[in-house]
Amino acid sequence: MRTAFSVTIKNLGQIIKVKPEETLSQALARFNIPLRFDCGQRGVCGKCQVKILKGQVNPPGRQEKYILEFLKVDPSIRLACLTKPKGDLEIEVPSESLVQSVKILEKGVTTSFPYCPSLRQYLFTLEKPRVSSPSSLVERVKKVLALPELEFPLDILNQLGEEARELPKKMQLVIYQDKEVISLEADSSPTPLLGLAVDLGTTTVVGELLDLESGRSLAVASALNQQIRLGTDVITRLSEALISEGKRRTLQRAARRTINALIHKLCQKTGYHEENILEVVIASNTAMNHLLLGLPIHTLARAPYTALFQYLPEEKAQEVGLRISPRGKIFLAPNIQSFIGGDISAGLLATRFFEKSGRYLYLDLGTNGEIVLRNKNRFWGTSTAAGPAFEGVGLSVGMMAAPGAIYQVSATPSLEIKTIGRRKARGLCGTGLIDILSIALQKKWLSQNGRILLRERQIKLTPQVALAQDDVRKLQMALAAVKAGVKIVMAKAELDFDQLDGLYLAGAFGSELNIANAMAIGLLPAIDPAKVYFVGNASLAGARCLLLNYTLREELISQIKRINFLSLAREKDFQNIFIKSLNLSPYPEKE
Amino acid sequence: MRTAFSVTIKNLGQIIKVKPEETLSQALARFNIPLRFDCGQRGVCGKCQVKILKGQVNPPGRQEKYILEFLKVDPSIRLACLTKPKGDLEIEVPSESLVQSVKILEKGVTTSFPYCPSLRQYLFTLEKPRVSSPSSLVERVKKVLALPELEFPLDILNQLGEEARELPKKMQLVIYQDKEVISLEADSSPTPLLGLAVDLGTTTVVGELLDLESGRSLAVASALNQQIRLGTDVITRLSEALISEGKRRTLQRAARRTINALIHKLCQKTGYHEENILEVVIASNTAMNHLLLGLPIHTLARAPYTALFQYLPEEKAQEVGLRISPRGKIFLAPNIQSFIGGDISAGLLATRFFEKSGRYLYLDLGTNGEIVLRNKNRFWGTSTAAGPAFEGVGLSVGMMAAPGAIYQVSATPSLEIKTIGRRKARGLCGTGLIDILSIALQKKWLSQNGRILLRERQIKLTPQVALAQDDVRKLQMALAAVKAGVKIVMAKAELDFDQLDGLYLAGAFGSELNIANAMAIGLLPAIDPAKVYFVGNASLAGARCLLLNYTLREELISQIKRINFLSLAREKDFQNIFIKSLNLSPYPEKE
Repeated sequence: MRTAFSVTIKNLGQIIKVKPEETLSQALARFNIPLRFDCGQRGVCGKCQVKILKGQVNPPGRQEKYILEFLKVDPSIRLACLTKPKGDLEIEVPSESLVQSVKILEKGVTTSFPYCPSLRQYLFTLEKPRVSSPSSLVERVKKVLALPELEFPLDILNQLGEEARELPKKMQLVIYQDKEVISLEADSSPTPLLGLAVDLGTTTVVGELLDLESGRSLAVASALNQQIRLGTDVITRLSEALISEGKRRTLQRAARRTINALIHKLCQKTGYHEENILEVVIASNTAMNHLLLGLPIHTLARAPYTALFQYLPEEKAQEVGLRISPRGKIFLAPNIQSFIGGDISAGLLATRFFEKSGRYLYLDLGTNGEIVLRNKNRFWGTSTAAGPAFEGVGLSVGMMAAPGAIYQVSATPSLEIKTIGRRKARGLCGTGLIDILSIALQKKWLSQNGRILLRERQIKLTPQVALAQDDVRKLQMALAAVKAGVKIVMAKAELDFDQLDGLYLAGAFGSELNIANAMAIGLLPAIDPAKVYFVGNASLAGARCLLLNYTLREELISQIKRINFLSLAREKDFQNIFIKSLNLSPYPEKE
Repeated sequence: MRTAFSVTIKNLGQIIKVKPEETLSQALARFNIPLRFDCGQRGVCGKCQVKILKGQVNPPGRQEKYILEFLKVDPSIRLACLTKPKGDLEIEVPSESLVQSVKILEKGVTTSFPYCPSLRQYLFTLEKPRVSSPSSLVERVKKVLALPELEFPLDILNQLGEEARELPKKMQLVIYQDKEVISLEADSSPTPLLGLAVDLGTTTVVGELLDLESGRSLAVASALNQQIRLGTDVITRLSEALISEGKRRTLQRAARRTINALIHKLCQKTGYHEENILEVVIASNTAMNHLLLGLPIHTLARAPYTALFQYLPEEKAQEVGLRISPRGKIFLAPNIQSFIGGDISAGLLATRFFEKSGRYLYLDLGTNGEIVLRNKNRFWGTSTAAGPAFEGVGLSVGMMAAPGAIYQVSATPSLEIKTIGRRKARGLCGTGLIDILSIALQKKWLSQNGRILLRERQIKLTPQVALAQDDVRKLQMALAAVKAGVKIVMAKAELDFDQLDGLYLAGAFGSELNIANAMAIGLLPAIDPAKVYFVGNASLAGARCLLLNYTLREELISQIKRINFLSLAREKDFQNIFIKSLNLSPYPEKE
């Protein structure tokens, strides 16, 4: 017998030596080819598929046949952990069989994480017990799957007992975090394992449906938070919830309905069933996650503004009222503090903020402006009530980034506008507002202190769309809030703006934001534009990370404890700095 | 200032030196006086009470005042972990303040275990949050209690939020296994924490109500297993359950009803409320625990007799249908094997069978006879279907050990009987049956092969009570089953009877069993009588251990894996040995 065979991996252009007693998965691992085997080479997950192009291998056994038939794969496909060569081979390793890493942020910075979802499907045959000293059925399943800590809920135990009337039987088990059996089926066809990442914003809610077996994104959908009828900003909604438990429940139902409607929409789009969704990860600010759970917010709404919880273990979807699988789970991205919620912790995770060393500013501009600063190993965080002006809400001329919104304005030298969907202009969204403010300053239509200098006291973009004096005032207030926050945090960290290694901009502004204009009016500090990264909806990206790799949850919970919270209201210079920041001018000011 | 004060502990007759900056609990610990502080000297459990008899100490702070008032103790009582001497002292350490160990078996062998129940009550004041950077309420509670892994169910989180409307507030938290909050109350009076140990036997069910804060037994009650209407032995009941799911549910309900009736009885006896019971530990054979949970028993009832589970994590009482606190938990003593259940694992725990070294035989004689043998570091276990004859069931003259049962017979030389409760004799219970068999043999009323030699073909004890030929046959069968089992296990272990260091006898026979008679008829092997220990209801004692020290649960689960199961039916000599064992004669036979 030969001591080793040559195995040519065609698609990787590599030739490896494989011993006859060795499985292909062992050999590939020896050559550092990162083959996926979610079950630890026990032949029960079906992930280590390879294609045999040429040469002889052992015939598949019963277990392998079961998996290959179950997954309805091409006849040339074999499971590497159950296949041994009988001579030289030519094989192909499909990219799906290689360890996945999940691309999280495509915009601005690309980050990726290893793939490790909460849910895994295992396929195996429960054999007849040996006649002498038979172990219990549960012990035998644990042994086959090499998961000694596995727990069976009573109803699934019941099912297992019923299915075991006749053995051997082919089983499919879905297991949560290697610990809890979520479903058991026998002799059925594969069921999809889906997860949902949600950015539950004060104004906008975005959901992304993902296939947990491949990590693939299936669909994205967004909707207005239905709570908006009860108040446009967080403070109004908290005040509303304070009135009575009834009002609080109304807010809870509105949040639930918003997410359930998104779930329905995503399922309709993709043809999947709600029951196929087994986990939801939600990134949301502290008020939103308290309201979604229907929790009292007395302490959150009043000084000194204390959250009820910072983080919670995974809750049952049923208890939260989300319409997914009855065994489904909900995880909330952890809150950093009462005013820096899970939306920010998720965003920091997506940008790998805690893993870098250096000096970075993270800015999330939504209804609130959250600011996190890293100066090497020290972290500061604060929150500033910018209001929804940047989202176009509350302005006579503002609108969300929807068809008909002017998202870009340029002066060449006459005003030129671009609208979303090339529709007739209906109003201005965030990026358009920044552009027109900057242009109006340049053209002296607007003074630095925000007075419209034109006789008509408005800045006309189209016959229907004009920026009014009141709109400018609201934008000034929002800008000043952010600017003052950034200045105070930088001062606290004793950092100069030119020392920053990077600025992450997350939130309402997409990559269409004109950096020069944003710096000209003082929305962003005037640093090297190459250091500014638009990370878009980093909260959603973070929720995706937490969904596709559950081990990151505990890590994030421990990392956020490093952030020192800064209460702007308690900084003695705040009023002063805020008033100075109302000026529409770049910062930091030159000496 | 003095560098140390003298503290005289009056009731222990000890004088210790205490530094002025030291708390009394620190000093007592330094002198190895095992003071209880369930909360780790954080001043939130109230267990380290000492009585100040003479001398000056610091005045109590708010937290200490709260606990002392809450517990309504004598004004001279202080908490040692919050008390520092201001001069020489005389104190008393009440025995309740010392680390408890729980006496488990009072009969035969006395064993005791350290005390560590699943449930603990913590008392503390939730203060107003600091104004700068307030932590969440949950984080603050975790910090006060030094329990960073603590989890709050959503409804208790809700309660916490409501209670936190006005702070500071005095809180009582009941916590399960240092991990899960079970109840939260504010400004209320102490609630008792009770637990229930149950021996769920095929025939008899015994329950013991315990105070989990002191380990004290409050009451014991017993009842017939209501399943008995559906079959007197395990095999009949399993066959019944096989007929239909309906029958299985009927058996489940009967078991539930039996335990719920016991709970009701114990609460009536003691004046407590069902809701005060927070945990139930049940020791039961494999069939009983499967039936109680309503699980399918197809695999358990048919060869090769496979249990569905060996052990389960703590289940919710509600899911099992037991009427205790809605947040209560149920733990089942782990099954060793299909035919050696949690009743035996519990009994082995109570006798510390796994901790000893040496050679021991454990014999549980109930409806089944279970045999566990330890030969130094090797363990064997088997089960033999003795039937309920020893419990008096199925015999014309038999009865349970209840008033009117003849429990002792002696020949002086005429027959003398003793009945339970000195009532008129109604029948014979186990120990009486053994006595009369042995006497009848001696008097040649009975041949060794079990034939009644008297002309009337019965052995009269009173005008109403007589042992019939058929009764003797049933007893012979039961005896032979046990005897054959013991012989085979001893042979397997290559052990001679005179090598045994001890024999534990658990089950139906109380300490009234006449050892000489039991040996004469071959119920027990003829070894040195001083080596025979009557351990009585060791299953109930084991359930009590598991209730009062939850850390033993995991340990027991790992220990039982050491036992090798022996299937008597598969031993080729079994028939042969069984038939030989039918003889009413001592064993081992002399050469």
